[in-house]
Amino acid sequence: MTEADARRKAEAAEEAALELANVDDSVRSDALEAAADEIRSRESEILEANAEDVEEAEKLLEEGEYTQALVDRLKLDSEKVEGIASMVESVAGQEDPVGETLQARELDEGLDLYKVSVPIGVVGSVFESRPDALPQIASLCLKSGNAAILKGGSEAENSNRVLYEALNEATSDLEVPDGWVQMVESREDVEALLDLDEHVDLLMPRGSTAFVQHVQDNTKIPVLGHTEGVCHVYVDGDADLEMAEEVAFDAKVDYPAACNAVETLLVAEKVADDFLPKIVERYGEAGVEVRGDEATQAIVDDVVEVSEEDWSTEYGDLVVSVRVVEDVEEAVDHVNTYGSKHTDSIVTEDDAKARRFLEAVDSASVFHNASTRFSDGYRYGLGAEVGISTGKTHARGPVGVEGLTTYKWYIEGDGHVAGSYRGEGAREFTHREFDGDW
Amino acid sequence: MTEADARRKAEAAEEAALELANVDDSVRSDALEAAADEIRSRESEILEANAEDVEEAEKLLEEGEYTQALVDRLKLDSEKVEGIASMVESVAGQEDPVGETLQARELDEGLDLYKVSVPIGVVGSVFESRPDALPQIASLCLKSGNAAILKGGSEAENSNRVLYEALNEATSDLEVPDGWVQMVESREDVEALLDLDEHVDLLMPRGSTAFVQHVQDNTKIPVLGHTEGVCHVYVDGDADLEMAEEVAFDAKVDYPAACNAVETLLVAEKVADDFLPKIVERYGEAGVEVRGDEATQAIVDDVVEVSEEDWSTEYGDLVVSVRVVEDVEEAVDHVNTYGSKHTDSIVTEDDAKARRFLEAVDSASVFHNASTRFSDGYRYGLGAEVGISTGKTHARGPVGVEGLTTYKWYIEGDGHVAGSYRGEGAREFTHREFDGDW
Repeated sequence: MTEADARRKAEAAEEAALELANVDDSVRSDALEAAADEIRSRESEILEANAEDVEEAEKLLEEGEYTQALVDRLKLDSEKVEGIASMVESVAGQEDPVGETLQARELDEGLDLYKVSVPIGVVGSVFESRPDALPQIASLCLKSGNAAILKGGSEAENSNRVLYEALNEATSDLEVPDGWVQMVESREDVEALLDLDEHVDLLMPRGSTAFVQHVQDNTKIPVLGHTEGVCHVYVDGDADLEMAEEVAFDAKVDYPAACNAVETLLVAEKVADDFLPKIVERYGEAGVEVRGDEATQAIVDDVVEVSEEDWSTEYGDLVVSVRVVEDVEEAVDHVNTYGSKHTDSIVTEDDAKARRFLEAVDSASVFHNASTRFSDGYRYGLGAEVGISTGKTHARGPVGVEGLTTYKWYIEGDGHVAGSYRGEGAREFTHREFDGDW
Repeated sequence: MTEADARRKAEAAEEAALELANVDDSVRSDALEAAADEIRSRESEILEANAEDVEEAEKLLEEGEYTQALVDRLKLDSEKVEGIASMVESVAGQEDPVGETLQARELDEGLDLYKVSVPIGVVGSVFESRPDALPQIASLCLKSGNAAILKGGSEAENSNRVLYEALNEATSDLEVPDGWVQMVESREDVEALLDLDEHVDLLMPRGSTAFVQHVQDNTKIPVLGHTEGVCHVYVDGDADLEMAEEVAFDAKVDYPAACNAVETLLVAEKVADDFLPKIVERYGEAGVEVRGDEATQAIVDDVVEVSEEDWSTEYGDLVVSVRVVEDVEEAVDHVNTYGSKHTDSIVTEDDAKARRFLEAVDSASVFHNASTRFSDGYRYGLGAEVGISTGKTHARGPVGVEGLTTYKWYIEGDGHVAGSYRGEGAREFTHREFDGDW
């Protein structure tokens, strides 16, 4: 039953995607503008549904099942609904990522090859409880010409349903194909979706590492995983220590629950005696628990002993692990051994060491003299983001609309056949790039 | 035992990959030049090893286990060895795909973001029996700064071993990190490899659809699948019928075993009476078996009745299925229903219909007035190819060195922290693109 239901939705999405791939940007953007208006006009309905979700969540908070942070993330108010509507409008206003000629090459006289950006097709996304996730992911999919199959957190069930209806109804009278957005609601539907590799082109699970790995383990569909961030700040022996303090502090304290918050601070021996007392005091004032290796404990008091497990832990909280390292090479080794290929930063005045760190650390984002917290689609100027990919293929780091596109190869010929390029009197390929749009 | 062996090789490859990512193009290219020389100097050794493989294969041919085509593909001679050496040199001479600044954007004063192409890391490839596949895939990996784990067909075991040794020894004295190329030899090793998602970043299986699906079903590692090509030529009602005949003939007969050969010919009603007798006669002369739908059978004799299964079959042989369709829309539907998203072509003088076909067919390569046989990395001007991807993420169609790269995000800051962009006196992002290289 649920399997048939998931298949039916996936087939409808696939049909819509084939049509949507050839719908003009103006139509897609108008649909998003209409969706933003619909969200605004349904504000009270959205808030009522959200209140039900929050009420349910508060019960579970009392029972110790949910955290206060989850309840806070779940809760909408008038301002947040307006924020969702503006976000949808801002996606509408982004540059069209589809139909761009990425390459134009003459293969022979009258035989031209074009590489052109196109939507991926059907994108399945499973995400957490923040109710703004659904309109954000749906908007990015529609803007990039993809059909979307969405599964939100059960905590936000009522909010999501109203937001989904708003999106669906606002776009149903327009030239956008029906069925471009589908919602599934149960865990069983998600499991069924994993088998539908014939109809679904990309999966974007957001959530715990265990959940993302479960998805990767159980599907043939390509997965763009948004998993944990075990991020590092390395304070080099040639760092400006005031700058290092600001960067290390911001990276931990600005928003500890974010995946781009720092979890481990690496400090060069040369400056450890100077730097550690200052940053540990600063962290202490902000309520950050510091867990240090032996060298750190020898320099500052009030430091909990760090365990091997700490080095690969995403605390997502006001906790930081600290290790004293010899130099940039030991820092690189530590990051490549324990990190999650998300975001890492070096603070140094030595440009050669900075370059070495940036090029040798195998992470999606690597920074010099900047907080890890900049690793984010909005801050990168990508507009909204569907997630931050810690995988190494297709899209890496913050993923915006461009990450939801792929490309096709077109050839315009004049009756050309492959046989002419072989044997006696064989024609030769010219392979000449030219400026030209498909 | 074999699992530990595969893990050890994958770990060695990972270590080499981290180093190789920061090795200059000149070093990588010199290593490839040295490998080409080594292959030339070992010609007699290669031919001896190959003769053993061929002898074994001929036994199995007699026993009916192998086809003549397989034995032919396996067999090397002096000219083919030189061809392999030249191919390695030509990969060396390609433009460096690594270290290219793909985007440069100022986020704020003194805070610059760069998107830079980098190698993927460790690439695992399992491929068929042609002995030139090993040096080709290894060369493309090295040129793009990736470590390679290779498993060739058991039919070419001896040839592959000598070619692997030549590559390994030629590069071992140079600044290329040891362990950049690894070979595994058994099916069990391949199975073990599928579990090593911590160390392997991309898998490229080449072979039957069943094999590629087996790989996709049993690994968390991203898979760039090179599977079957069920390609189409659609002869439109407004086609130049002489051109259509040449294209349809070349697409089938030029090299029927290739994945870009046509399997199904779609013919518009309007021209079926004129076109079908000519092309069927032409196919007949070349020994092509034609399987047609009712409409085709009504027009020409000597046509076998086509079955539903035929429409999704890659014959890889001198067989073609033929269907009469109403118009371009029915052709598009047929291709999107039965095709394998590989390569499809329309022959028409009507540009609007051509554009409709190219944009609506959901395949990696879609052509107008050209044979499907042009779908190939060499012909596209990509240099050698590691395969043709029928998936829709990461890389699509013929995949050259560029498909073996990903990107990283670098930020150069001056002590910037995220907290400055919030609250009172918040700084604003400038998000200004600029010309500049990392």
